[in-house]
Amino acid sequence: MPTPKKGTLLRLHFSESDRHAGKPLYEAVVERARQLGIAGATVFRGLEGYGETAEIHRPHLMRRDQPIVVTIVDTPENIRRLIPEVESMMDKGLIATSEVECIRVERSAAPK
Amino acid sequence: MPTPKKGTLLRLHFSESDRHAGKPLYEAVVERARQLGIAGATVFRGLEGYGETAEIHRPHLMRRDQPIVVTIVDTPENIRRLIPEVESMMDKGLIATSEVECIRVERSAAPK
Amino acid sequence: MPTPKKGTLLRLHFSESDRHAGKPLYEAVVERARQLGIAGATVFRGLEGYGETAEIHRPHLMRRDQPIVVTIVDTPENIRRLIPEVESMMDKGLIATSEVECIRVERSAAPK
Repeated sequence: MPTPKKGTLLRLHFSESDRHAGKPLYEAVVERARQLGIAGATVFRGLEGYGETAEIHRPHLMRRDQPIVVTIVDTPENIRRLIPEVESMMDKGLIATSEVECIRVERSAAPK
Repeated sequence: MPTPKKGTLLRLHFSESDRHAGKPLYEAVVERARQLGIAGATVFRGLEGYGETAEIHRPHLMRRDQPIVVTIVDTPENIRRLIPEVESMMDKGLIATSEVECIRVERSAAPK
Repeated sequence: MPTPKKGTLLRLHFSESDRHAGKPLYEAVVERARQLGIAGATVFRGLEGYGETAEIHRPHLMRRDQPIVVTIVDTPENIRRLIPEVESMMDKGLIATSEVECIRVERSAAPK
C-alpha cells in the first residue's frame, strides 16, 4: 500500500445562486481548479443552511438557493496557490483548510 | 487577502428521522445555532449509511431515514459553547470536531 | 457531557459508477466496514466533480457517474485496519484521513 502524503483539504462554502462570469460560482471554481492543475474537486449541495451559504438576496431569487460546499484535496503548495484565485471569485462565503494524510489510488486496468 | 484565523469545524452525524421538540432534529439544531449567534451551519443528507446515523427504529418508520450530517464552522470558543447544547438535543449520534484555518469573505456589493 | 476521544475521520473519494464484486463500490465499502466492526459510515453523492471522482470511462457510461464521498469516523486503530481493505477495493480514487475529537451520544430511550 502506498505511504500517505501530507495534503490540505480545502472547503469552500457559498450559495447555489452565487455566480461568477455568467455561470454558477461552483462551476467557475471547479473550472479554475482544473485550469490550475489541481488534482480534483467535488461539489456538494446542502439541504439547508445559513450564514456563509444563505440569506443572500439577489435578483434571481426564484431560483433554488441552497448551500454549496466544494471540497478540494491537493498538496499544501497547490492549495496555497488556489486560495487567492477562488477568494477573488467569491463575494460572500467561507474558505476553510485543514491538514489531511492522502493516498491516491490509480491502478492499471489489469483484471483484479 | 485576509489572514486565515483558527477555527473549529463541528460535524454532527444523526438521522433524518430524528426529532426534537416536534420538528426534525436537523432543523432544531440549525435554529439553535442561529439563536446562539453561530456564524453558519449547513445540513447534508447522505445517500446511505449505518452506525450513528441509522438503524434507529421509530414509530415513523415509513418516512425516509437517511443519514444527516450538519457541519458548522466558527471560532473554537463558539463551538465549545454550542456542543453541550446540541449534545442535549441528540438521542444518538456522533459529534466530531477538528481544527481548521478560516477566511471569511464578505465583500461590499460594489461592481467587480 | 462525555469527554471527547481521539478519532480519525476517513474520507474516500471515488465515482458512483465504480463497482466491486458486482455491486456499487460505495455499497461494497459500507458493507466491508460493517463486517469489520467499524462504528459507522456515511455515503454522499456530489453534484459534480473531477479528478479522483470522474473521467472514468467505463462500459456502463449511460449510468449516472457522479462523485461519491464516503466518510467514516472511528478510533485511529480501527481506521488503520480499514484502510488497506478499502484501498484494495478501489481502482482509482483518493483516501484521506484527518484527526478529530469525538463524542458518541447514545441515550437510553427514557423520555426526555
